[in-house]
Amino acid sequence: MNRFDKKMLSSRTTSAFRTELAVRFQDVDAAGIVFFARYFEYVHEAYEGFLAEAGHPLAEVIREKKWAAPLKHVEADYFAPLRFGERVSVSLAAAEAQESEINLGWRLSNARNPEQVFAVAQTVHTFVELPRFVRTAVPESIAAALQTLGE
Amino acid sequence: MNRFDKKMLSSRTTSAFRTELAVRFQDVDAAGIVFFARYFEYVHEAYEGFLAEAGHPLAEVIREKKWAAPLKHVEADYFAPLRFGERVSVSLAAAEAQESEINLGWRLSNARNPEQVFAVAQTVHTFVELPRFVRTAVPESIAAALQTLGE
Amino acid sequence: MNRFDKKMLSSRTTSAFRTELAVRFQDVDAAGIVFFARYFEYVHEAYEGFLAEAGHPLAEVIREKKWAAPLKHVEADYFAPLRFGERVSVSLAAAEAQESEINLGWRLSNARNPEQVFAVAQTVHTFVELPRFVRTAVPESIAAALQTLGE
Amino acid sequence: MNRFDKKMLSSRTTSAFRTELAVRFQDVDAAGIVFFARYFEYVHEAYEGFLAEAGHPLAEVIREKKWAAPLKHVEADYFAPLRFGERVSVSLAAAEAQESEINLGWRLSNARNPEQVFAVAQTVHTFVELPRFVRTAVPESIAAALQTLGE
Repeated sequence: MNRFDKKMLSSRTTSAFRTELAVRFQDVDAAGIVFFARYFEYVHEAYEGFLAEAGHPLAEVIREKKWAAPLKHVEADYFAPLRFGERVSVSLAAAEAQESEINLGWRLSNARNPEQVFAVAQTVHTFVELPRFVRTAVPESIAAALQTLGE
Repeated sequence: MNRFDKKMLSSRTTSAFRTELAVRFQDVDAAGIVFFARYFEYVHEAYEGFLAEAGHPLAEVIREKKWAAPLKHVEADYFAPLRFGERVSVSLAAAEAQESEINLGWRLSNARNPEQVFAVAQTVHTFVELPRFVRTAVPESIAAALQTLGE
Repeated sequence: MNRFDKKMLSSRTTSAFRTELAVRFQDVDAAGIVFFARYFEYVHEAYEGFLAEAGHPLAEVIREKKWAAPLKHVEADYFAPLRFGERVSVSLAAAEAQESEINLGWRLSNARNPEQVFAVAQTVHTFVELPRFVRTAVPESIAAALQTLGE
Repeated sequence: MNRFDKKMLSSRTTSAFRTELAVRFQDVDAAGIVFFARYFEYVHEAYEGFLAEAGHPLAEVIREKKWAAPLKHVEADYFAPLRFGERVSVSLAAAEAQESEINLGWRLSNARNPEQVFAVAQTVHTFVELPRFVRTAVPESIAAALQTLGE
């Protein structure tokens, strides 16, 4: 599956889902800025919010054991350091679906100054049917929610 | 079950188990020192080491589903800040067993300067039989390993 | 400084501050329940909320470097396992202030069923003046906010 | 800077640095496997080991404030789930240096069965001179250590 262009992601203003969160006191590293892997925790929090809005709260998905959407690939580009005290806006800014796979494009910006983009990220998920763990189509409500992003 | 005295724990030089670990880059908080809850992660790493040495690697205990030892109580006293770059020695310095319960006393000191105690901690575990989840006796090999601590 | 009784804390319905949060996907451990040290992360999130409401957002406190309130002691008692999908209500249910020290008593209950208490915790902070790091009085607005808890 | 091919990374058997670590009890997520962002924590642990071996322990680099190497880009491809109880071998399997930038290619395999690759990752670092934060050449000892990887 194709990757999104990082410049495109960083300039996108539309979104299929958006959430806001605060940098936690313990999210920083010994260099005094948010540890690079935490950005993916922020993205995952937004992903859970998106799933819930599409009718599939993750806790329910796990309990029902009908399908799972393990990560196949993730990446992030960092533009500006994030610090404790800042609020982050995480937007699902782009999406591409192909049969059993989706690529989600994320934009992490300053909730108090949306022009400032801290980072962009991409997460590629493969949908599998449980318990057989074979590829299955992207659930319709998820595909539909992503279509609001258009091209 | 009784609590250990923090002064006793901090001055104990004997131990039933000892491990050494490095503060991780991402263990600090926005105040620049190790986040207080991470000390319990260090203690748990030592607890896992102790269990393995007593013949019960935690991954195996979980897989076998015969018993579990959920935490009932934990506490920590902080004496000196811990910083990135430091190495921590975690010792199981005291233990008390009572039927289905154990209280483990931990000492976290500077691996390069054992006189410097960063913190002491205590963890009280209750042993339960699975799948019924009713109290059961402390496994013998664990009780035996703890007895090396004497009184 | 005295400790609070865990039964008192678990039955307290008044609070000086209350916040609500969701268990994160990555907060669990290999036993399938929330890792015991994460409860302190939840408590710290509520502590930050309390500080902000008392006029001292933690990021500002750190930036200004006038005082700090390092932890001297923490403890927790666990009553029921917490799972992904659950929402936690964290209340500052009891407090005692003594010159340069405060003991805060926390209650972690089920936000959807307040009768169910997952755990209680206590955090003892010592206030120090910076950069000298000598004990100083508890800031007035914080002492005042705590007094709403009465005895 | 170019990206490494994930198939190349997963099949590389040479390495400029290799470390081994255990999955921690609290590294899993509610789906029962290691949370995807933790892989980057494992990579960072190996990165710190590599830096130390090249004569630049990260804690010292931070203390000296002469240069920093913030992350510009990271990515990971996941091949097999990682579980608690497993041991991970993290190898620095490929590297490319260009003036002020390095791209490091990582291979995370089963320490007990090196044929099984859990994931590969890449981290692109930009070297900057402090306090001016302008691009600077990759320190010589680091460039030299990477050259052992050849083409």
